[in-house]
Amino acid sequence: MTEKNKRIGDILKEHRESIDRLDAILIYTLAERFQHTKNVGRLKAEHDLPPSDPEREAWQIARLQRLAERAGLDPEFATKIIGFIIEEVIRRHRKYRS
Amino acid sequence: MTEKNKRIGDILKEHRESIDRLDAILIYTLAERFQHTKNVGRLKAEHDLPPSDPEREAWQIARLQRLAERAGLDPEFATKIIGFIIEEVIRRHRKYRS
Repeated sequence: MTEKNKRIGDILKEHRESIDRLDAILIYTLAERFQHTKNVGRLKAEHDLPPSDPEREAWQIARLQRLAERAGLDPEFATKIIGFIIEEVIRRHRKYRS
Repeated sequence: MTEKNKRIGDILKEHRESIDRLDAILIYTLAERFQHTKNVGRLKAEHDLPPSDPEREAWQIARLQRLAERAGLDPEFATKIIGFIIEEVIRRHRKYRS
């Protein structure tokens, strides 16, 4: 292996180690988020509140787009991933009442 | 509003405030992750390395499933969301070389 290849390998390795740590943050944060939405889902089912709240969801998506922009994250990607998470949450809320 | 409804509203509000804070963590963590994958993508394009690395991706997915299980997050959901992020990363890596 040349000196240059070793240097590239080292830089790649450092980035990958950061990515792996960030992925652990993502997983644990998502787990914490689902704990809260699970409690919300139970509360809504117990008190016969509707599983989805379009006004709250629109507010969330608009806020997350602003945050994404501020953080330098592609807002289109942010919307896609947040939409994906919210959809999963609503799917689970529906399950509580069926 | 009855006392009971007020109590339910307060609990919902607390959960939603936590969810909103966790969403900010998710957005900023994703932004940090994309900064690293952007650097990896550039490095790979500069040195003519392949944009995707199936062995690394398989390792990542297996690790994240273990982490998800440990964190109490549905491993199926974790796989879906991580797959979604990795796909987006590869799509962007390809863009650097075109």
